[in-house]
Amino acid sequence: MDTEQLVNQLAAIVGRENVSASAVDRITHSFDATQRQCLPDVVVHPASAGEISQIVGLANEKRIPILPRGAGSGFTGGSLPVRGGIVLVLTRMNRILEIDVDNLIAVVEPGVVTARLQREVERLGLFYPPDPASKDFSTLGGNIAECAGGPRCVKYGVTRDYVLGLEVVTPTGDIIHTGGRAIKNVVGYDLTRLFVGSEGTLGIVTRIILRLLPKPEARKTMLVAFSSIDGAARAVSAIIRGKIIPATLEFMDASAIDCVRKAAPLDLPLTCRAVLIIEVDGDQAQLDGQAARILEIIQPLGVVETRVAATADESEAIWKVRRSVSPSLRILNPNKFNEDIVVPRSRVPEMIRALEAISNRYGVPIVNFGHAGDGNIHVNVMVDLRQSGMQVKVEQALHDIFRTTVDLGGSVSGEHGIGTAKAPYIAMELDPATLATMRAIKQALDPRNIMNPGKIFPPEEGQPSCVPTVSPSP
Amino acid sequence: MDTEQLVNQLAAIVGRENVSASAVDRITHSFDATQRQCLPDVVVHPASAGEISQIVGLANEKRIPILPRGAGSGFTGGSLPVRGGIVLVLTRMNRILEIDVDNLIAVVEPGVVTARLQREVERLGLFYPPDPASKDFSTLGGNIAECAGGPRCVKYGVTRDYVLGLEVVTPTGDIIHTGGRAIKNVVGYDLTRLFVGSEGTLGIVTRIILRLLPKPEARKTMLVAFSSIDGAARAVSAIIRGKIIPATLEFMDASAIDCVRKAAPLDLPLTCRAVLIIEVDGDQAQLDGQAARILEIIQPLGVVETRVAATADESEAIWKVRRSVSPSLRILNPNKFNEDIVVPRSRVPEMIRALEAISNRYGVPIVNFGHAGDGNIHVNVMVDLRQSGMQVKVEQALHDIFRTTVDLGGSVSGEHGIGTAKAPYIAMELDPATLATMRAIKQALDPRNIMNPGKIFPPEEGQPSCVPTVSPSP
Repeated sequence: MDTEQLVNQLAAIVGRENVSASAVDRITHSFDATQRQCLPDVVVHPASAGEISQIVGLANEKRIPILPRGAGSGFTGGSLPVRGGIVLVLTRMNRILEIDVDNLIAVVEPGVVTARLQREVERLGLFYPPDPASKDFSTLGGNIAECAGGPRCVKYGVTRDYVLGLEVVTPTGDIIHTGGRAIKNVVGYDLTRLFVGSEGTLGIVTRIILRLLPKPEARKTMLVAFSSIDGAARAVSAIIRGKIIPATLEFMDASAIDCVRKAAPLDLPLTCRAVLIIEVDGDQAQLDGQAARILEIIQPLGVVETRVAATADESEAIWKVRRSVSPSLRILNPNKFNEDIVVPRSRVPEMIRALEAISNRYGVPIVNFGHAGDGNIHVNVMVDLRQSGMQVKVEQALHDIFRTTVDLGGSVSGEHGIGTAKAPYIAMELDPATLATMRAIKQALDPRNIMNPGKIFPPEEGQPSCVPTVSPSP
Repeated sequence: MDTEQLVNQLAAIVGRENVSASAVDRITHSFDATQRQCLPDVVVHPASAGEISQIVGLANEKRIPILPRGAGSGFTGGSLPVRGGIVLVLTRMNRILEIDVDNLIAVVEPGVVTARLQREVERLGLFYPPDPASKDFSTLGGNIAECAGGPRCVKYGVTRDYVLGLEVVTPTGDIIHTGGRAIKNVVGYDLTRLFVGSEGTLGIVTRIILRLLPKPEARKTMLVAFSSIDGAARAVSAIIRGKIIPATLEFMDASAIDCVRKAAPLDLPLTCRAVLIIEVDGDQAQLDGQAARILEIIQPLGVVETRVAATADESEAIWKVRRSVSPSLRILNPNKFNEDIVVPRSRVPEMIRALEAISNRYGVPIVNFGHAGDGNIHVNVMVDLRQSGMQVKVEQALHDIFRTTVDLGGSVSGEHGIGTAKAPYIAMELDPATLATMRAIKQALDPRNIMNPGKIFPPEEGQPSCVPTVSPSP
């Protein structure tokens, strides 16, 4: 590739100041939250679908990989330039174009940070529910690429459920429009949802029509300590059977409680071996009754302590317990393998027990927390890769984790996507004919395989892979 | 095509008793609710995905069209054998395989009638919300093919929102598995939603994993008569802005009220020019409060009468008003063109005014009712095709209706699909590049174009079309 010529051609499209092949820009855009890196050839910051269409046209002609990128906060390598190419940074396209209060719709560009949209619509009494943990920095374009979730999904669903329509630049440089402004729409194939979760491999989203809801009037947070994970899991099913769907049903298992305890004093009884954080939302008038009913329903299931927040500060204190898990992990070991499995919610205890067994089998600490309401478990395998043979042990442990997940009727990714990190495991879940169908779609829309290549599908022999951002050293 | 040989080959797969090329069976499977008909060559009743895989393999080899069919109750010709071929009737595959109360999941075969599943899950305290008007006879396979909606969609969403996973026989005879049992799932492309609404053109659904909800404890029905459609439309927005999302928000415009009045005495004041039927559901304890709040919110908007049902009988009486519209239409004229447009809900009054203008322009009665909550209007153009020149007038009126719909930011089909009936209009809504993307997917998955050919995409020159089931005669 003649990089200088490419830079000049890109500069003619987006302006000299929005394209760079400098070492610093290439390194800055070489990694995401997976802590692996690969250098792109060029970094470009387009401002419109028209510019992107021209850039993609050029890349298609020259068969150069295109890597769409938002905040680069993904956990599975979705924005890593595994085969070099042009990183297309979408953060300049960060306008909220419209908030339509009557029709509960927002129209935005892909570079809008999720929490910013949430603040803007909440000011108008509206609500955009998807709440990935990264929402303060991740972008809506990235959320759509990965079909982001979050704690509120048990009641409100995932990103997919809020995307009504898209403008997309296809891998051949065409600008297409999918869906529309209506919830009901059966005009041709549902391209909207095909693009949601396609991890930037089928096209570049340049405009998004989102569905909004009225903002719930109030919310109420509870922390419930259980003597076992079985009790906590049974509580989840019992609450839902009791016709209450809380906005969040978060859990920490014994490994997570122990980990938090090691990092700081934890004001919970020692008999507590599982925690549920339950938040209900809706009309102020009904929340007290709902909270009381929940506590009544779950009381027989091994509850050792309950706290119901009476104020916003008390609610914040409860959420602080949950948020303290992630920072506490590093006291166990320096390297984190953060998986994102999902099983039917009644199988959560079985999965947790299997994770304990895998932890013992390979002598690696595994800490689990996540979204009990939808069976989405964040599995954190904490190791020190400087120890000899540890990389192999981790790989064996991950293999066993994904195998068990699929055997329990689950999925290897609930909200982080496949990217490069889970591509070696996708064939455990999808049979060859299903994968072949996905490949046929990829091939049909991106015949030259320029759009975020090397993602989702099982890696081919000899495919280049990224290096760790921090090399293990003795 | 050697029909006798084909029948023998099919009989070897499904048994002699489940295949027929008799005139009576071909005629019985030649039409749907569009009142047009085209004869298939053979009718086959398979019992399993394995049998279907073999049938499709055979059809693919011989390039014979395959027409999947449930109850044949579609409104847009989705199951019409426009190019002959094999009608694959799925009604023998009618087992409810599993209802998982803990995980709120049902697993069913495509031939299950929607209302039957609803009854079965409600017996267990669960709820399957999508409620197309055809639910007492239409099948879940057909609901998925067309992404069926219904009155409850304003609160609960459409069929797409309840499909978690599918088993599908592809046009090449492979059996694939999409999605799974989790709401959160980002493992490869979202094939599940690509198949939902694809009208049987990409494959045959042979097993369905559905998401369920807890059944709402109670419901409350209200009828509100308004002096204008503008008041009724403003009421819809005001209710939702008031943080109440009713389960249904149905409307009848002045044309529908007049039509019902002509058919039978209607106990509503003459000043009533629009009706909303509002039903809220949820906890018994909160419904009275919600109903009162709704009536308070909408009072300033030209309300001329309100009725709140105190009993199930009174609720039924209110719904009877709404259900009386369809049967009353035939007193206007014998031939009905039943369209299914959707516009952003704030544009409903503009659309209704445009429909009045179109009705006057061509001198054809147009009666409108439908789902105000999501802007989905059932437009009924009532004519007598025996009148000379009427076919042309109807086509001009439909053209104007769809043109206006798209100009108002709407869609030409909210819940009935495109099929053959709206294929001539799809290019009004979708630009050429978007249609080309859909065609590329169709071509990739069905290279020999055997799977329900002649549907969705704009008809080609010289394409055979079906004949009316009842020919106009003088």
